[in-house]
Amino acid sequence: MRYSLFAGGKRLRPLLTLAAADAVAPDDPAAQAAALPAACAIEMIHTYSLIHDDLPAMDDDALRRGRPTLHVVYGDGLAILAGDGLQAEAFALLAREPAGDDAALLGRRLRTSRLVADAAGVAGMVGGQAIDLHAAGRVPGGRATLAADGLRAMHARKTGALIRAAAASGAVMAGGRDSAVAAVDRFADELGLAFQIVDDILDVEGSAEQLGKTAGKDAAGDKPTYPALYGLERSRQLAADCVARAHAALDAEGLGGRALTGIAHWVIARRN
Amino acid sequence: MRYSLFAGGKRLRPLLTLAAADAVAPDDPAAQAAALPAACAIEMIHTYSLIHDDLPAMDDDALRRGRPTLHVVYGDGLAILAGDGLQAEAFALLAREPAGDDAALLGRRLRTSRLVADAAGVAGMVGGQAIDLHAAGRVPGGRATLAADGLRAMHARKTGALIRAAAASGAVMAGGRDSAVAAVDRFADELGLAFQIVDDILDVEGSAEQLGKTAGKDAAGDKPTYPALYGLERSRQLAADCVARAHAALDAEGLGGRALTGIAHWVIARRN
Repeated sequence: MRYSLFAGGKRLRPLLTLAAADAVAPDDPAAQAAALPAACAIEMIHTYSLIHDDLPAMDDDALRRGRPTLHVVYGDGLAILAGDGLQAEAFALLAREPAGDDAALLGRRLRTSRLVADAAGVAGMVGGQAIDLHAAGRVPGGRATLAADGLRAMHARKTGALIRAAAASGAVMAGGRDSAVAAVDRFADELGLAFQIVDDILDVEGSAEQLGKTAGKDAAGDKPTYPALYGLERSRQLAADCVARAHAALDAEGLGGRALTGIAHWVIARRN
Repeated sequence: MRYSLFAGGKRLRPLLTLAAADAVAPDDPAAQAAALPAACAIEMIHTYSLIHDDLPAMDDDALRRGRPTLHVVYGDGLAILAGDGLQAEAFALLAREPAGDDAALLGRRLRTSRLVADAAGVAGMVGGQAIDLHAAGRVPGGRATLAADGLRAMHARKTGALIRAAAASGAVMAGGRDSAVAAVDRFADELGLAFQIVDDILDVEGSAEQLGKTAGKDAAGDKPTYPALYGLERSRQLAADCVARAHAALDAEGLGGRALTGIAHWVIARRN
């Protein structure tokens, strides 16, 4: 669990959680600090999903965050268990912290736990990965073809749901009003799609050294991607459109959120 | 997820949850009903652990609850995902039900969520399964030898922790006082060990038809078991001693609990 969790990585999701807390409670350090356990729990969920996705029975990848994948080092059995354990520890952390039995805080912890669990489960990450497995022909019964609509639906569940939960959790834990939580959620929905489109572009353009994971993997696996469906130039424009809509969602609620804006800028400009 | 969850099985853990609720709130149907989501969530956690334990990378078993194991039917990838999804849905259910925002109820839901997460994680089930994998020589670096003390510690984590959480959750959700929750937890601690000892005995004595899973598997895999360490007769006595201590824990707190007593009797007498 430590091997994978402390291997680095972009930490996009926990940064989003903390940035969202900052956006809804800009002058309240205590409210922002209340989002830290959620940020950590969500990174645990994300890391567990990477460990399981990299297994030979799934995407079968040997390189992640610039290191050999966990199963290469410790075997498939322990890699499955490490992922399982990270998921459990995430929910243990959400149930435990921030400590206190004020009714509002208890309610926020439960709401966050539900946001994360729903995003991690069949309506989210796990369901998206199942669609991906079918589309990659890794399920008995043959390959399912994925059109543009299906591609978007898959990403919305596979990566989008947890990115949204990351941002929304930060807003919830920092005590944001419902309309602010909804605005942050819309921001993250657009950001998550932009992130995925850029991921597909980098898989075509980047090197393994830059990415810290195997490059050219999507095309080699004949996976549906944005560049494959729309070409590189149109894909770049689609990503930029998403980020513009993300900013508009914040503006409509009067949430400046310098940290959120910085993350959105990075998502478009990143090279890894 | 449905294939494995609705395949039947003994339902020991959810029955314990409901029986514990009955023991601490014998005349309060509403309090008992509050334990039902926890009972379901714990069966989801248990089922996910069976799916993952049966994978080729772990115990590599082809028969469970009288049916082909999930990975045999749907492939390893979907089986890993089904387990992951069941774990997430368990915590979503605990965060969601019973509905209501009374502070006492919110606190009980969070306490139950933590009990279940701790029991499922490294301090519990996942950690116990990791010890088991090492002892079975399924981890790079060679086999770890397990003596009698280690065997008990492994079972306490691998199966005991979730059995205790099942009972304690029922007592918590039904509003049991702390001393009653502790007594139910001690009952379940002893019951869990008795259950495991009988499991080991049945693996030697039973047939696959009776058990609904492969028989003789432990000895064939050279796994540490109670009969292997103590012989059959002494193992039976150890299980009976556990059940006697389990009853004493309830008596000391004045908890009759007919349902709990019935479960304890079944654990000793069962043939599958």
